[in-house]
Amino acid sequence: MTRRGRLGAYTFRFFAAAFLLLLAMPALTMPVRAEDGYDLWLRYRPMETSAQAQYRPLATAIVSEGISPSLDAAKTELVRGLGGLLNRPVGAGAVQDGAIVIGTPTSSPLVAGLKLPLSALGKEGYLIRSISLSGHAVTIIAANSDIGVLYGSFALLRLIQTRQPIARLDVSSAPRLKYRLLNHWDNLDGTIERGYAGHSIFDWHKMPDYMDPRYTVMTRADASVGINGIALNNVSADPWILSSMYIEKVAALAAVLRPYGIRVYLAAKFSAPVELGKLKTADPADPQVQAWWKKEVDGIYRRIPDFGGFVVKANSEGQPGPRDYNRSQAEGANVIADALAPHGGTVFWRAFVYSEKDPTDRAKQAYNEFKPLDGKFRDNVFVQTKNGAIDFQPREPAHPLFGALPKTNMAMEVQLTKEYLGFATHLVYLPVLWKEVLDWDTMAKGKGSTVAKVIDGSLEGHDTSAMVGVSNIGDDRNWTGAPFTQADWYGFGRLTWDLNLTPEQIAREWLGMSFTNDPAFANAVVPMMIASREAVVDYMTPLGLHHMFATNHHYGPGPWINDLSRPDWNPTYYNRADAKGLGFDRTPSGSDATSQYAPPLASLFAGPDIPDRDLLWFQHVAWGHKMKSGRTLWDELIVHYDTGIAEVGEMRRTWAAMNPYVDDERWSQQVAFLAIQEKEAQWWRDACIAYFQTFSHMPMPAGHSAPPHDLSFYKAIYIPYAPGAPGVTSAAFHNKPKDPIE
Amino acid sequence: MTRRGRLGAYTFRFFAAAFLLLLAMPALTMPVRAEDGYDLWLRYRPMETSAQAQYRPLATAIVSEGISPSLDAAKTELVRGLGGLLNRPVGAGAVQDGAIVIGTPTSSPLVAGLKLPLSALGKEGYLIRSISLSGHAVTIIAANSDIGVLYGSFALLRLIQTRQPIARLDVSSAPRLKYRLLNHWDNLDGTIERGYAGHSIFDWHKMPDYMDPRYTVMTRADASVGINGIALNNVSADPWILSSMYIEKVAALAAVLRPYGIRVYLAAKFSAPVELGKLKTADPADPQVQAWWKKEVDGIYRRIPDFGGFVVKANSEGQPGPRDYNRSQAEGANVIADALAPHGGTVFWRAFVYSEKDPTDRAKQAYNEFKPLDGKFRDNVFVQTKNGAIDFQPREPAHPLFGALPKTNMAMEVQLTKEYLGFATHLVYLPVLWKEVLDWDTMAKGKGSTVAKVIDGSLEGHDTSAMVGVSNIGDDRNWTGAPFTQADWYGFGRLTWDLNLTPEQIAREWLGMSFTNDPAFANAVVPMMIASREAVVDYMTPLGLHHMFATNHHYGPGPWINDLSRPDWNPTYYNRADAKGLGFDRTPSGSDATSQYAPPLASLFAGPDIPDRDLLWFQHVAWGHKMKSGRTLWDELIVHYDTGIAEVGEMRRTWAAMNPYVDDERWSQQVAFLAIQEKEAQWWRDACIAYFQTFSHMPMPAGHSAPPHDLSFYKAIYIPYAPGAPGVTSAAFHNKPKDPIE
Repeated sequence: MTRRGRLGAYTFRFFAAAFLLLLAMPALTMPVRAEDGYDLWLRYRPMETSAQAQYRPLATAIVSEGISPSLDAAKTELVRGLGGLLNRPVGAGAVQDGAIVIGTPTSSPLVAGLKLPLSALGKEGYLIRSISLSGHAVTIIAANSDIGVLYGSFALLRLIQTRQPIARLDVSSAPRLKYRLLNHWDNLDGTIERGYAGHSIFDWHKMPDYMDPRYTVMTRADASVGINGIALNNVSADPWILSSMYIEKVAALAAVLRPYGIRVYLAAKFSAPVELGKLKTADPADPQVQAWWKKEVDGIYRRIPDFGGFVVKANSEGQPGPRDYNRSQAEGANVIADALAPHGGTVFWRAFVYSEKDPTDRAKQAYNEFKPLDGKFRDNVFVQTKNGAIDFQPREPAHPLFGALPKTNMAMEVQLTKEYLGFATHLVYLPVLWKEVLDWDTMAKGKGSTVAKVIDGSLEGHDTSAMVGVSNIGDDRNWTGAPFTQADWYGFGRLTWDLNLTPEQIAREWLGMSFTNDPAFANAVVPMMIASREAVVDYMTPLGLHHMFATNHHYGPGPWINDLSRPDWNPTYYNRADAKGLGFDRTPSGSDATSQYAPPLASLFAGPDIPDRDLLWFQHVAWGHKMKSGRTLWDELIVHYDTGIAEVGEMRRTWAAMNPYVDDERWSQQVAFLAIQEKEAQWWRDACIAYFQTFSHMPMPAGHSAPPHDLSFYKAIYIPYAPGAPGVTSAAFHNKPKDPIE
Repeated sequence: MTRRGRLGAYTFRFFAAAFLLLLAMPALTMPVRAEDGYDLWLRYRPMETSAQAQYRPLATAIVSEGISPSLDAAKTELVRGLGGLLNRPVGAGAVQDGAIVIGTPTSSPLVAGLKLPLSALGKEGYLIRSISLSGHAVTIIAANSDIGVLYGSFALLRLIQTRQPIARLDVSSAPRLKYRLLNHWDNLDGTIERGYAGHSIFDWHKMPDYMDPRYTVMTRADASVGINGIALNNVSADPWILSSMYIEKVAALAAVLRPYGIRVYLAAKFSAPVELGKLKTADPADPQVQAWWKKEVDGIYRRIPDFGGFVVKANSEGQPGPRDYNRSQAEGANVIADALAPHGGTVFWRAFVYSEKDPTDRAKQAYNEFKPLDGKFRDNVFVQTKNGAIDFQPREPAHPLFGALPKTNMAMEVQLTKEYLGFATHLVYLPVLWKEVLDWDTMAKGKGSTVAKVIDGSLEGHDTSAMVGVSNIGDDRNWTGAPFTQADWYGFGRLTWDLNLTPEQIAREWLGMSFTNDPAFANAVVPMMIASREAVVDYMTPLGLHHMFATNHHYGPGPWINDLSRPDWNPTYYNRADAKGLGFDRTPSGSDATSQYAPPLASLFAGPDIPDRDLLWFQHVAWGHKMKSGRTLWDELIVHYDTGIAEVGEMRRTWAAMNPYVDDERWSQQVAFLAIQEKEAQWWRDACIAYFQTFSHMPMPAGHSAPPHDLSFYKAIYIPYAPGAPGVTSAAFHNKPKDPIE
C-alpha cells in the first residue's frame, strides 16, 4: 500500500466516521426541539431514508410559469414541504424528470398546451396527473384557478406525507360543498366562548401594525384542508367589530388570508344600527336601518373586496333580533342579505333560537319558527342549523329542520371545540359524530334523503351548499389544546371537501402526517380514535340522555340542577327522572317533537322499535323497562356508563404502548389528559347514578360497584373558573365559598 | 497509485464532500426553526467554530458526586448548555482534564477535600475556580448548598455564553439581597392585570393533573438570574387561591419550583377569613380570625413545607384591610405574620395605600400612614414599597418612605410589566430606571444613604433584605410580549443578585446570550437600550410630569381627564395645568410633600435649584419661567417631547441596521413594534401639547410643528379592549359607541 493509499484509507475512515457521526449528531448535540404540535399536520419532517430515496426522483423541481399570491403560496408550500420531507432542497426549475409543473391554462402555457379535462373541477378543484412532457416524466398540478393549484399542491404533499405512490397519479378532486367555514367564537377582549385552547390568537390590539406570523400558519393549515372562510368573532357579537377602527384590523387579516383562498366573515350584532349607527331602532323594515346596513356593508367592501359576509345569532340567548320588532327571522336575515348581495356576500343566519317565554319543548322551537319561513329567505342566505335540536350534545338525533326547508339554503353547524365533550382534555374524535349526522336519513324525500344530501344541495337541487364548524383554535402552542383535538380541525376540513371520506380514512391520514406512518401505530390508534366517540356518549349521556351538564361552564355532571332562571337550561328539564322512570317524552303523548320528523321516523321514534341510542331523547321509560338486551333500563344504563369508563381505560392502555412511536412531549401530555379523562368519566358515572338512584331505588347490577360517595358529595363539587364559560368573573364565586384548607 | 489508493482518494473526496454538504445542510433542508424567543437567554445555540475549539477542552465532563433534585437540575443544565454551546455531547464523567466538578462539602468528598473558602458565600453563594486536581486541570463549582451549586452552574454557562475566558477562573459571588421575588399579577380566570404578553401561563384548571412543561422553562429562567421566590396571583387577590382545591394546585407548582430554589408565595385577600372561613369579621384583633389564619397557614405548610408566605394589598384601591376595623396596617400585617412565623414564612405588606376620602396629596399618604408604624411590624414582615410615591411612572422621585422607616424591613417593588410605559410594544429598558432609584440618595443618614443601602439592610443594620418585581411574563410564545422585554426579566434578577451591576453590563450580557456576541451588535444596541428610558420620559411625561394616562387601561395620553370618581385618578389632579403654569406644587406653599424627604432634599425640591427632571413633580411653574437652558418652560417642554420622538426615530434606524445580526422573526417583530412606538410617541406629544396649549396660549417654538389636529381629535380617540386593564367587559364600551365605517 502506498503512503498515499494509506493516507487515503485513513482519511476515508476519518471522514466516514465523521460523516456517520454528523448524521447521528442532531440527536446527540443539537437540543432537539420537542414536538410541541405547533406545526400541526404540516410538519414536513424528513421521511425515513428509504422513502426519501423513493420520492426524490419524483420531485426534483417546481415549474410555475404564472405569478400570483396564490401561486406563490403554492410554490412556497411545495418548496417547504418537499424540502423538509425529502431532506434536500427542492427549488424552482425547468421541465426535467421529476419536475412538478403547476398552473392554470390561463397562467401557464405549458398547462394550457396539455388540454387537460378541467371543466368538471369548478373554481376550486384540481387535477394531479403524472405525464410525459417533452420526454420528461413530470407531475402536473392543474386547476381552473390559482386557488385550485394551491389545493392541488397541498394534496400532492399529503400523498407524500402519507407515503402514497405518486409515480402514476391521475387524481382529480373538487369540493363537495361550496362554503367550508370555521366560526371562531372569539371575543374582542381575547377570551373565547367555549374555548379550551387558551385565549384568542387574534391580537386585535396590535393590529394592523403588527400581524403575528401565527395568522399565516393558521391560514396555511385551514387552506391545506380546504377551509375557505372564517368568521373571526363570537356569534354573541360585539358591535365594535363593525366600527371603522376594527374593520381596518379585519382588512389586514383578510390580506393574510386572501392568497390562501379564505374569505373573512364577521359575526354581526343585529342591533348594530342602534349601537354603532345611533339609530333609534334596528327594525329591518325601517328604511334608515336598511340604509345603515347598506352603507356599513359598502364601507366594508371598499376595504375588503372579497369580504365573505355575516354570521348572525338573533333572538337567541339574549341576543337582539327581528322578533324584538315583530319581524320574522327571514325579514331580519334579508335586510342584511340585501346589503351584501351586490357584493357577492352571504348571510349565515343561525337557526339556534329558543325562548324562555315559549313553554314548547326547546327541541321543537327552531323548527316551529323556521318551517313557516321556507322560501322566504333571500338566495344569499343560509339557515345555519346545528347538527341537533338541542346543543352539540355527545349524541343527538339530527335536527328536524334538515329536510324540512326544501326551498331554503341549509348550512349545518357542528362544534369542533368540545363544550359538551369534556373540553380539550378528553379525547373524543369528532368526525365520527359528524359522519353519523351526515349519514342520517331524514326520509324527507323517501329513503336515502340523507343530511349530507340536504346540505350539499343535491336533495332539492340547490346550487349552493355549506357546512360550518365552531373552531377549536386558540393561542395554545399546539393550537387546539391537546394533541388529538388537531384531528378535529383536520377532519372538519377534509370532510367538508369530501363528504364521502370515512372517519377512519381521515384519522389514518392525520396520524401519518402528525406522528408517523408506521402501520403498527395507526393500527392501534385509529380504532382508539373511532371508539372514543361512543365512549363519551356512554360515560356522559348514554341511551339518549342529554344536557346533563353543570351550569354555565358545562364541565362535569349536574343532572340534579333544577333552579336556573330558564327551565330549558336545567338538566332536570331534559332527563325528567322521576319515580316512574327516565327520559323526555317527545312522542305524541308528550311534547310530540317526533312529529317534526318525516313520518317513518316519527313513528319509529314514538314506538317500541326506537333504537336504544335515541331512547331517552324521545321517550320516558320505566326504570324496570326490559331493553333489547334483556336487561332493565336501570341495569342497561349502568352497563353503558361502565362500558364508557372501560373504553377510556382501554384508550389509556393503547396510548401508553405508543411511547416508541411518539415524541415525549406530545405523548406525555396525552398520557396526562387520558388520566384526567378516566377520572372524569368515573365522576360522570358516579354522579349520574347517585342522582338517578334516588328515583329508581334499584340496586346496582351484579359486578357493578355503587358510587363511592352519596349524592350530596357530587352536588358539592364546585369548579370555579372552568375555561370557556361566558362572562366568568371572580365576583360570581364569592357567594359560593368553599371551606379553607384543613 | 494502487487501486486501493485510488479508491481511497475517491471515497475520501466523496466523503469529504458529503461531510461539507452535511455541515451546510441544516440551513438548506431542515426548515430552520424561527427564533421565537421561547428559549429566552438560555438558548445554548452552537458557538462559532473558533469558540467551540477554544472552550471544548475546558468542558469535557461533569463530575457530581451528590444526588439531589437541585444538583440534578445543575447537572442537567450543564449537560444541556454545554452540549448546545460546544456542539458536542458533554456528559457525566470522571476527573480528567477539562472536567467540571460540582458540589458542596457535604455532598462531595472531592469538594470537601479542597477546603475552599466558602464561609462568606452564605446559603446561596457560589465559588467557581480553575484548579489542578489529581494532576488534571478542572473547574470547580462549589457552594454551601445545592442551590448555590445550581447558581454557580448558571454562572459558568453565562461566562461561556458571553465568551468570557474560563481557563483561570476565581469567581465567588453571593446575592446582595435575601429575597429576590417576582409578583405575578395573574388572575385565576387567566387574565393578567397589567399583562401585555398574553394571558396567564398558569393553567389552573388542568393542575395538578397536568403540569405544563412551560412551568419548568420559566423556573429555569428565574433561577438562572437568581430569582428565589414568586407570588403566583394578583395582589388584588381572589380568596379562592387559599381554598383546599387551589392549594393542591399550588403545591404541584411548588414541587416544580423547589429544585430550583424558588419558593412559592401567594397574594392573600385580607378578608379571606370572612369569604373562605365564614367568619363574621376579618378584624385582626379577633381571636377567631387569628385562629383562622393559623389553621389556614398550618394547612398550607403541611402541603408546601417551603411555602414562602403572603403578599398583601390591603386598604388599597378597594381591597379590604385592617383599616376597615380601625386597626393599623401593622396590626393587619402582624396577624398574618404570626401565623407564618413558626414555619419561617414572610409577609410582604404593600405600602401602596391611598384613600379617596383623604384629601391629602396622594403622594404623601403612604408615608403618613406608615411613618408612625415604624418598629411596630413583626420581624418577618416587609413593608413592600413601590419605587415612587405614585405608581410606576416613567420617572418618579424615590418614595419618601425609603430611609424613613429605620426600624422596619423595607422591600422595594418595581414593575417589569410596562403599565405606564407603552405596554410591550414600546422598547424601554427598565434596569436604567431601577438603577436610578437604587442610586437615589435619601440623605436619611447623611450623604450616601442610597435606596440600595436601605433595601439591602446595610443602612440600618437589618439582617434581611428584599426586592420585588411585578412580572411581565405571560403565555406569549416569547414569554414577555416582545424581544426586548425579556431584558427586563433578566435584568431584574441580575440586579437583585448584584445591585452594583450597571445597566450597560446587564444589557451586554443579555444581548450576547439572546442574540449574538458580535461586538458591532452590542456596540449599537446597548446605547439604544440605555437611551430608551429617557426617550419614554421625554415623549410621555417630561420634566417631572406624571400620570397623564388615559383612564383604566393607561394606554395613551389623557392629560385632560378630570371626571373620574376619585380626584387622584384624574390626570388633571397631577398636572395642574392652568393659565399660570404647569405642575403640582408640593412645596411647603402647596401640599408640602417635599417635607417628607430628608432636609437637604426637601429644600432642594422646594427651591430654585431643583433638577429639571423633577421640576413639575414638586413645583407649579409659570409657562414663561426661564429654565436652566434659557428656554421658557413651554419651549423646554416641547423640546423634550420632540427629543423623545427623535430618540425613538434613532432607535428605529439603529435596529433596522441590525438585520444582519438577528433572525428574521425577532428582527421583524421589533421593527413593527418600533414603528408603533414612534407613532404613539407622536400621539403622546401631540395630544399633550394640544391640551397644554389651551392654557399656555403660547406659540410653538421655531422648528417645532404644531399638533396636526385640535384637542377634540385627541380627546375622541378611544381604545376599547386595551390589554391588561382590570375588569374590561364588552358592556363597558356600549355606552361609548363609535361611528360605523364610512
